Amino acid sequence: MTQDTAMGFAIDSDPTRWGVSATSVLPAPARDFLAREVGIATGRPQPQWDELVAPASRLDGDALAGLRAIVGAEHLLVDDGARLRHGGGLSYLDIVARRQGAIVPPDAVALPGSSAEVVRLLAWCEANGVAAVTFGGGTSVVGGLRTGGIDRPVLAVATTRLDEILDIDEESRLVRVGAGMTGPRLERLLSPRGLTLGHYPQSWHRANLGGYAATRSAGQSSTGYGRSDAMIEGVRVVTPRGEIEVGKVAASAAGPDLRGVFLGSEGVFGIITEVLVRVRARPASSSYTGIIFPDYESGLTALRGLVQGRVAPDVVRLSDPQETAVTLAMSGPSGRSADVLEKYLGLRKVSEPCLAILGWDGTRATIGARRLEAQPALRAAGAVSLGSKVGRAWAHGRFDGPFLRDLLIDEGYLVETLETAAHWSKVPALRHAVQAALRGSLADGGPGPYVMCHVSHVYETSASLYFTVIARQTDDTADQWRQAKTAAMDAIVASGGTITHHHAVGRDHAPWLADEIGDLGMDVLRAVKSTLDPAWVLNPGALLSEVAPPATP
Amino acid sequence: MTQDTAMGFAIDSDPTRWGVSATSVLPAPARDFLAREVGIATGRPQPQWDELVAPASRLDGDALAGLRAIVGAEHLLVDDGARLRHGGGLSYLDIVARRQGAIVPPDAVALPGSSAEVVRLLAWCEANGVAAVTFGGGTSVVGGLRTGGIDRPVLAVATTRLDEILDIDEESRLVRVGAGMTGPRLERLLSPRGLTLGHYPQSWHRANLGGYAATRSAGQSSTGYGRSDAMIEGVRVVTPRGEIEVGKVAASAAGPDLRGVFLGSEGVFGIITEVLVRVRARPASSSYTGIIFPDYESGLTALRGLVQGRVAPDVVRLSDPQETAVTLAMSGPSGRSADVLEKYLGLRKVSEPCLAILGWDGTRATIGARRLEAQPALRAAGAVSLGSKVGRAWAHGRFDGPFLRDLLIDEGYLVETLETAAHWSKVPALRHAVQAALRGSLADGGPGPYVMCHVSHVYETSASLYFTVIARQTDDTADQWRQAKTAAMDAIVASGGTITHHHAVGRDHAPWLADEIGDLGMDVLRAVKSTLDPAWVLNPGALLSEVAPPATP
Repeated sequence: MTQDTAMGFAIDSDPTRWGVSATSVLPAPARDFLAREVGIATGRPQPQWDELVAPASRLDGDALAGLRAIVGAEHLLVDDGARLRHGGGLSYLDIVARRQGAIVPPDAVALPGSSAEVVRLLAWCEANGVAAVTFGGGTSVVGGLRTGGIDRPVLAVATTRLDEILDIDEESRLVRVGAGMTGPRLERLLSPRGLTLGHYPQSWHRANLGGYAATRSAGQSSTGYGRSDAMIEGVRVVTPRGEIEVGKVAASAAGPDLRGVFLGSEGVFGIITEVLVRVRARPASSSYTGIIFPDYESGLTALRGLVQGRVAPDVVRLSDPQETAVTLAMSGPSGRSADVLEKYLGLRKVSEPCLAILGWDGTRATIGARRLEAQPALRAAGAVSLGSKVGRAWAHGRFDGPFLRDLLIDEGYLVETLETAAHWSKVPALRHAVQAALRGSLADGGPGPYVMCHVSHVYETSASLYFTVIARQTDDTADQWRQAKTAAMDAIVASGGTITHHHAVGRDHAPWLADEIGDLGMDVLRAVKSTLDPAWVLNPGALLSEVAPPATP
Repeated sequence: MTQDTAMGFAIDSDPTRWGVSATSVLPAPARDFLAREVGIATGRPQPQWDELVAPASRLDGDALAGLRAIVGAEHLLVDDGARLRHGGGLSYLDIVARRQGAIVPPDAVALPGSSAEVVRLLAWCEANGVAAVTFGGGTSVVGGLRTGGIDRPVLAVATTRLDEILDIDEESRLVRVGAGMTGPRLERLLSPRGLTLGHYPQSWHRANLGGYAATRSAGQSSTGYGRSDAMIEGVRVVTPRGEIEVGKVAASAAGPDLRGVFLGSEGVFGIITEVLVRVRARPASSSYTGIIFPDYESGLTALRGLVQGRVAPDVVRLSDPQETAVTLAMSGPSGRSADVLEKYLGLRKVSEPCLAILGWDGTRATIGARRLEAQPALRAAGAVSLGSKVGRAWAHGRFDGPFLRDLLIDEGYLVETLETAAHWSKVPALRHAVQAALRGSLADGGPGPYVMCHVSHVYETSASLYFTVIARQTDDTADQWRQAKTAAMDAIVASGGTITHHHAVGRDHAPWLADEIGDLGMDVLRAVKSTLDPAWVLNPGALLSEVAPPATP
């Protein structure tokens, strides 16, 4: 795994942990918070990789020789470690399976070096009754990469090697990259040209652009830069029935938009090998500010006013009272900001303050102008600025969440994040419904669970909600998770939220897909699948798994 | 047909003319221009409606009784006039067919009053071997409404009566409307609430929202407000296999985006009966300005700088030297603006000035701020403002183009508009290629044809080009048009442009669809079609007509 220091810190080499080596111990304030709000749990440290044993590969020597002939011997991985590392992503069930030594890995891992090799791999899979599961950055948190439960041998196809810039059209601000390009690498390559993609999902260090396209990922600056499906102009996709390039011409209105079909297709229609992305001028400066609203409703009103008034910052994030309490306790303002905050809370008799982070990219002049434009909506909502220190603290720690999750799981806690989005008028009730569902399902007689939430992206008509829940693990934590997930998803559907704003469907959300798009929508997806992948070779366990079980070869 | 005076003038009651009654004579400067640049043509006035006779309907008494039982007798039109008026749209071939008395009309016209009636109509059509062609506002300029050449009886299904607001969620800025809602009616209904859709296609007076959705239309303010597919959050569609509602939840990333499948589907997958649109605060003020650039390249550079710098106005339009010459000759600046222009052109030795119209919506304050932000890019390109008078003149006449076209056709001219879009780096060569193709195909030994072009919408990565060509009609002007259209479309495809940026595919662009989306893309569309409309009942002559000929019933 690559070491990457683009953002100033190194990535741990263990692909099932997001970890940042430098801070691998749970901070004391976090420990205090857990004891008080969730209860004391029993630590369950995870086994080391070399303690795990993979079941024997179902691919025989002839089969492996066939695959080696396509990608080269050094690009076909069959050792236990490599197979286990490609046997899932980072969903809670994946992590639990790894801790229990229960990963069902692929039978081999191929690392093709070109679209042409992907074509040959898929033909080989179809001819040999083997399923193919595309592995991008390996960061799926919804079970999209799980390879167990498929009634055929499984080949993981990792896009890792397809990581070059293929073309740059600076005039049109377009860059064509291989699907294996990661965010840090792309930013490093674009930086000397004064360009940026500006897409910072929390999985940024590992996720790759093929993954962005396959899942319609959102980044922390998506309010300003757009979700990945807004910045991806086209993709090249290898299907078992041939290659297709969608979005190769600009701003087309020629019939249906086939980008809608392939973006978000999660590897079930084909393997995305190239991505054409819109880039922007690299901002000279960035400014992040912490803001306190007197309560959640006034925060929502302010955010809605900003985006509907078309003066939203690039980063917009609003924590609810529960998340605000944790954030302020862990890394709250100090010095002058703390005084301001305390005085404000006292003067306004505010008992449930809500912290927002607003961030602007640009030049000092444009940032200044945009901040001014945002003032009226903020002032009307009773907002008080905590200054840039809080904003910088957020920016500094913004990729740490998944790491903290690993530490908490080690300590015996169930930690899960869930996300949705809804039209503005439905947001408050949606939040309450999900909170109630999680609290009801995970209550264990102690103080927990602790449920917190923030608005993570805003649109003119809607906002997304991102929940974090922490509870003590039960002995069967996979089942504990399943029950809580079901309760939360049912609450989301009943409240008019989407089943996913940016985590995608994978396996974990597949049972609810028909609730969102209807039976006829599922029929449409199945028809496309059967046209492009008639033998259901591709990722038969995910997205459409509830529609039609994988055909036996 | 409705009279509508929302924009201050009445619509002619003849649905095959866009005409504005008050100005039904070709202005003298236009006549001079034509004589000089295109040559003198022979007038060919069109026949009156009551001179036209429709072929007998292929639907017998039982069939008509079945249809009347569904929509009510008063909502099933079988008279020659109604049938002929629904036998096409406003493409050049449609207009020529009408003038030659050669319209092949539908066998009846049904005006359903609800989605439930549309469900029953489609079931009836499928059971009786009848094709259904959806008729929205009747403004297709690409043959999307032509009903000839279909080997079955044809029922036109007009969405006219589905013209109510069904729901307003002001907090979420969302409005659900029936597909038959027209732009003027919606603006009139939204105005008291301080809201606007802000979508002004040149077909605004007649086109309806179902048509916007079915064709991914663009309006004159699309640079600021987005193309229709960006403002439409969802649609309800009645297919022969049942109803589907796409986009009912917000900001979803749950698998492929089915809006991509149904927006732009041009009536071949189902009939859109409801449209959920995002609306915005009605601007307190609008400001349009005329700008002169020293040449076309500097104009392009300025526009690109504005949109890539994220400071583009809401209306962005840049005429090439040929279009600028005509505009200045017909309705150029007078008084102080004329002096400024003359001095500027003389001082800078500018021989090929290019006129741009920039337009901002907002408050006086926000418009002022945005205009300031745009200044650096304009100044760097050597732009000179002609002031608001030229801008207002454009705004005043901006729906007149199609009307002028009718008058010119009366006078014996072929007048056609073509549109495309391309990445910025391809725009100059694309313009030259289309110019050359049209000039080559339509040369007749006289001074013509005259080809002019403007950039009509800009995006960060691309711009759209809108061409107008005027030539003298030959005796077989339909064939003359087919040759010119073929030459232009081939040039567009060869230059990397899209086959349509906002006119849609219809019949006229269908032969080039596979060039744009590939054979596999066509297979995907055919698979969706066959899933939702297995008997190919819906609009079998358009969009996919080159893929699979309509099945015989």
